[in-house]
Amino acid sequence: MLAERSSFNPLISPEDVIPSRPELMVKGVCNAGATTFGDEILLLLRVMEAPAPDDGMVFVPVLDLDGRPGNAYRFLTFRKDDPDLDSSDPRVVSYRGRLYLTVISHLRLARSVDGVNFSIDPKPTIMAQGPQESYGIEDARVTLIDDTYYITYVAVSHFSYTTSLMTTTDWSDYQRRGAIFHPQNKDVVIFPERINGAYFALHRPDPGKFGLPAIWIARSPDLLHWGDHRHLLGPSLEGWDAWKVGAGAPPIATERGWLEIYHGVSHDGVYGLAALLLDGEDPSRVIACSPAPLLVPETMYEIQGFFSNTVFTDGVVRKLGESDRLLVYYGASDQYVCMTEFSIQAILDSLGPCKPAQTQGNMLYDGGRVDGGRSPRPRRE
Amino acid sequence: MLAERSSFNPLISPEDVIPSRPELMVKGVCNAGATTFGDEILLLLRVMEAPAPDDGMVFVPVLDLDGRPGNAYRFLTFRKDDPDLDSSDPRVVSYRGRLYLTVISHLRLARSVDGVNFSIDPKPTIMAQGPQESYGIEDARVTLIDDTYYITYVAVSHFSYTTSLMTTTDWSDYQRRGAIFHPQNKDVVIFPERINGAYFALHRPDPGKFGLPAIWIARSPDLLHWGDHRHLLGPSLEGWDAWKVGAGAPPIATERGWLEIYHGVSHDGVYGLAALLLDGEDPSRVIACSPAPLLVPETMYEIQGFFSNTVFTDGVVRKLGESDRLLVYYGASDQYVCMTEFSIQAILDSLGPCKPAQTQGNMLYDGGRVDGGRSPRPRRE
Repeated sequence: MLAERSSFNPLISPEDVIPSRPELMVKGVCNAGATTFGDEILLLLRVMEAPAPDDGMVFVPVLDLDGRPGNAYRFLTFRKDDPDLDSSDPRVVSYRGRLYLTVISHLRLARSVDGVNFSIDPKPTIMAQGPQESYGIEDARVTLIDDTYYITYVAVSHFSYTTSLMTTTDWSDYQRRGAIFHPQNKDVVIFPERINGAYFALHRPDPGKFGLPAIWIARSPDLLHWGDHRHLLGPSLEGWDAWKVGAGAPPIATERGWLEIYHGVSHDGVYGLAALLLDGEDPSRVIACSPAPLLVPETMYEIQGFFSNTVFTDGVVRKLGESDRLLVYYGASDQYVCMTEFSIQAILDSLGPCKPAQTQGNMLYDGGRVDGGRSPRPRRE
Repeated sequence: MLAERSSFNPLISPEDVIPSRPELMVKGVCNAGATTFGDEILLLLRVMEAPAPDDGMVFVPVLDLDGRPGNAYRFLTFRKDDPDLDSSDPRVVSYRGRLYLTVISHLRLARSVDGVNFSIDPKPTIMAQGPQESYGIEDARVTLIDDTYYITYVAVSHFSYTTSLMTTTDWSDYQRRGAIFHPQNKDVVIFPERINGAYFALHRPDPGKFGLPAIWIARSPDLLHWGDHRHLLGPSLEGWDAWKVGAGAPPIATERGWLEIYHGVSHDGVYGLAALLLDGEDPSRVIACSPAPLLVPETMYEIQGFFSNTVFTDGVVRKLGESDRLLVYYGASDQYVCMTEFSIQAILDSLGPCKPAQTQGNMLYDGGRVDGGRSPRPRRE
């Protein structure tokens, strides 16, 4: 494997994070946006919290929309033996067909000069706010453009989930800029510069049952309004990325094109990471794909945790002074923050042709017995 | 009821439409965008076609992406007795969890001087084109802004469905402007003018299992790129609109605000129409709602057809010379084009307060046994 995991992994664990309120405990810290600010590496952590377990009950924390001060929560209470309750997935409970999250997330800054030892803010940096964030905010990605940091994040609520945008220049004041991708969309990464006059983003809309979860690309004149949505890359139909793919970290510029570290999910629900190369002048053109994943769950903290068998990146940073070294920060089993290094050149050299199913989709997926060759008879009346 | 159905209903039936190819038959003609052009009323019909039935087989028509000329189709062939096949919904077949449409749609112009007698183009006006329209194009809505007609339509494919945009000035040349709303989104209507500097649209993203299908509103600087997505109006939790709502026709300006004729769906799957009033200066503010539907399936052609118990509008036209008379064109049972007249004033006078669940959603929906009052104990370690 090309991956060189940090010997300090996991870099951040739930016990390193002070809960936001006394009645909550930190269940996971993961999926961190990553960037640099001055001579520091910043991670914008996703901190997942839930009430302490209670025998026989499930407490679902939601933002209190009744106007109580200070980011108060209230708790939806379910009996574990309720026959209408399905709690087989640790991330959600399903009650009479409606989904709720078992944890509520906020975003919290962590700072480091060496990229492995982080000092974590003692309090939440950015909390959920308003009805479209009633179930929390998750999975930040950070792109620096012209001295402004553009932070995409997933806003989950009783309406659904969107990807929303906030901006900052100083990591102290944050401006919310609204939902830039309507339900259901996540895994949104913004390219770090205009390309032939337009901004671009990768995103991952939910395709429903017509297609498979795939990476799409969109254009924008101003980073706030998006259009020209195009399917870019889908699952490969077998193996590590047969079920879903989605963007990971914001793309980085290389001499061969835009390098994107993205995630794939197998039919068994195992999350892995791989690379994708997009045309430097037209990022809606896919040039090359990883023939095999760059990182799959192998270590104990990747295999076993809040959501097991998961490695998932939201941010990469080029190592200071070493332009070929890429620090890939990733969430492990939705519980820990980890890091692995790569040689960018080695990743580029590993890429090969994409499979037709990845770029073109396949309407015969799962349909070995679907016969596209036979035509019906012409109609006679 | 305020509705005054045309005595000529249904105005257009499948047998009035010449199939696009000899091996296809017209299964339905419905959900027409409506506008005026010169002294004519134009309908942009959705024409749904499928191969003639074949005992024991289901043929699914899809756009031929292998490059055959002339909008050729190919046919996915399923055996009706295949245990992996679910064909209980006449609109779709589900095969091993993947959805396919039983019909493929194109758009076709119909013209009228009196609003009830239409002359229908003998050939398709606008056909599906390219991989993101492989399953056809559906449900046009037309908005005239500054001499350009903006046509939103649903593009369905093996990737999923988007709402895409085309424009025309002469109803002869059409320019495709790309997917303006990513999967899964339909029921997109564009407001007919800038409001305080921005364009607005209503849309209906699929909320997944977190919420219920609801009307959202978005802003745009240029009609091509959209952002600031906000939940506007959802189901009312009981009655005719308990399951879903979605925009219908593009909103019309009245002295009291923007009047929107939209659809709702009950838990039993019955589609009805109602009205909604939005603030004239800030259309993200809902002012008033219909206390009861304006139109529900009652006549034979509304109750029984390709998809029974459905009335669904994509376009309204103000009657020439009678500013209070609104002609509401609607699809009946996904098979016929019908029309009903209303007095705009009577609709406005019928409106009342919206229910909290409509504007605020309800995270306790379906959860009479969800207890929001009890809190978990503070954590002690």
